[in-house]
Amino acid sequence: MRMTVTGPPTTTVLPVLTECCSPVVGQVITPADADTLASSLKAIADPTRLRLVSLVAAHEDQEACVCDLTEPVGLSQPTVSHHLKILVEAGILSREQRGRWAYYRLIPSSLTDLARLITP
Amino acid sequence: MRMTVTGPPTTTVLPVLTECCSPVVGQVITPADADTLASSLKAIADPTRLRLVSLVAAHEDQEACVCDLTEPVGLSQPTVSHHLKILVEAGILSREQRGRWAYYRLIPSSLTDLARLITP
Repeated sequence: MRMTVTGPPTTTVLPVLTECCSPVVGQVITPADADTLASSLKAIADPTRLRLVSLVAAHEDQEACVCDLTEPVGLSQPTVSHHLKILVEAGILSREQRGRWAYYRLIPSSLTDLARLITP
Repeated sequence: MRMTVTGPPTTTVLPVLTECCSPVVGQVITPADADTLASSLKAIADPTRLRLVSLVAAHEDQEACVCDLTEPVGLSQPTVSHHLKILVEAGILSREQRGRWAYYRLIPSSLTDLARLITP
């Protein structure tokens, strides 16, 4: 359905961690894997983005639009949209456009993958 | 032993995560917890620091001095020491001075705590 020619794909996810990585503790991580894993960790290593992930996951139906998120984090819509874009590009959240608003949803496997890769 | 008045403590650890946090997914994380957790994640959200953690954990006796680490990461000793300091301050590594060199060791519970807090 997402490949229909009548509209663009509704969800954009870069599955960076599916190509990656050996865990940090065990064998020595390669520079390439360290780059990939650091990029994903950077996406959530920010207080606002952690709160956005937490808010989206706790929201009704586990999805939220930017209109639901600006007030709780106390930031402007462009700033919140910027943070959400980083989370989508890192594969932490999915984004689906519905009419006027884009709706965001947690991709739980992304956090499970990150947790697994840093667990000793 | 570490409190003896005959010398300084040999290990410096800021146990930031022991005062923190609710997991990201579940209840909405508080701004204070998000700050604390983001600080810890930032410490490892860097390719060089991920490689240093991995090298220390994989090293003989699971400890390494800065002299063991400069060549594998291809950086100067001051730069490596700077990254190690960030990891010690975040409670990821412990540091023990022995004679001329400081020796670093992974604190596995720090990574276990981080993994637990980001696991959905």
